[in-house]
Amino acid sequence: MRLPRPIEELVQYFRLLPGVGPKTATRYALALLKQDQITLDRMARAIGALRQAIQYCTQCYNFSLKNPCDICGDPERDQTILCIVAKPQDLYAIENSGAYRGRYHILHGTLSPLEGVTPDQLKINELEGRLVAPDNTIAEMIIGFNPDMEGEATSMYLNHLLRDKGVKITRLARGLPTGGDVEYADELTLASALEGRKEV
Amino acid sequence: MRLPRPIEELVQYFRLLPGVGPKTATRYALALLKQDQITLDRMARAIGALRQAIQYCTQCYNFSLKNPCDICGDPERDQTILCIVAKPQDLYAIENSGAYRGRYHILHGTLSPLEGVTPDQLKINELEGRLVAPDNTIAEMIIGFNPDMEGEATSMYLNHLLRDKGVKITRLARGLPTGGDVEYADELTLASALEGRKEV
Repeated sequence: MRLPRPIEELVQYFRLLPGVGPKTATRYALALLKQDQITLDRMARAIGALRQAIQYCTQCYNFSLKNPCDICGDPERDQTILCIVAKPQDLYAIENSGAYRGRYHILHGTLSPLEGVTPDQLKINELEGRLVAPDNTIAEMIIGFNPDMEGEATSMYLNHLLRDKGVKITRLARGLPTGGDVEYADELTLASALEGRKEV
Repeated sequence: MRLPRPIEELVQYFRLLPGVGPKTATRYALALLKQDQITLDRMARAIGALRQAIQYCTQCYNFSLKNPCDICGDPERDQTILCIVAKPQDLYAIENSGAYRGRYHILHGTLSPLEGVTPDQLKINELEGRLVAPDNTIAEMIIGFNPDMEGEATSMYLNHLLRDKGVKITRLARGLPTGGDVEYADELTLASALEGRKEV
């Protein structure tokens, strides 16, 4: 027993989304059946038009309506500091913290031998290009990857590749998150919090 | 700092899907940016065309290309037995078990005072209509809801409403799922398994 074809077809497209298996995709497709036709038409138009307006910024490789994007094209931004992130969402998270006024470089992933992600699939050559360009103004590069295996591996790779480019390489601090709980913090987080302790 | 408008717009549409919050919706929208235009156009077409081919079967209220649907229109099906389920996915799960040859009735939800789901929002009047119709052939009604609070409440409601309609009302058995583990089964499941024990 199969779902009617138009639903089955849409299920296949929902399965293209990250982390969406057959059950979730079916749930999504059946949920859309409860939307009115106007909403469905608008959603369809939004999907069809998505790529047409959006391009890569050829400096930071964020998605943008313009090239260079608003951040790279902003002369008020600190040109001496570059934050390297894995994906656009990380850039928006850092921007929304309000604590950073430099520029960015998006790798579009992290190295993962298990998932077959190698350096040539990431924007690493492009990052190196920015650092060795004759008009380079970057003095510090902040690595802003998730503190996990892939993030660590990518961080080590970049450090090895770029340490002789005359740029200071730093990474985001590790420690207790605000609102976190000493009792429930894992050992590595506590070790990082102790190691990075600050005088009050 | 906001995402570019075309992405932001699509995020709003993904948030219409069940259980999808802003972070997941953003992840989905950014993932679609990596698909080619042909795939996006096809997905858009599938969404736009979804409701046009699909209708409700006015007997069981499943989604179908035909009315009555293939199951309700099949004269080989047992006309004396009706399985009541909450959603189409439950029907497909039961069909795929191969153990049921009767018909179905889909309520499109279960009663949930917390989420504001009242009897008039479900296909309960329509179910009652089937049972009291002069040409009614239904002798047994199997309640096939999830064994949770909403399922229990809906089951009790239906039992109260329909018990004097001359139809035997049963519900799916409770017990250990195949491949399950006595050690890790919860108390209620074990109590049900004991209560419903069978001679071997």
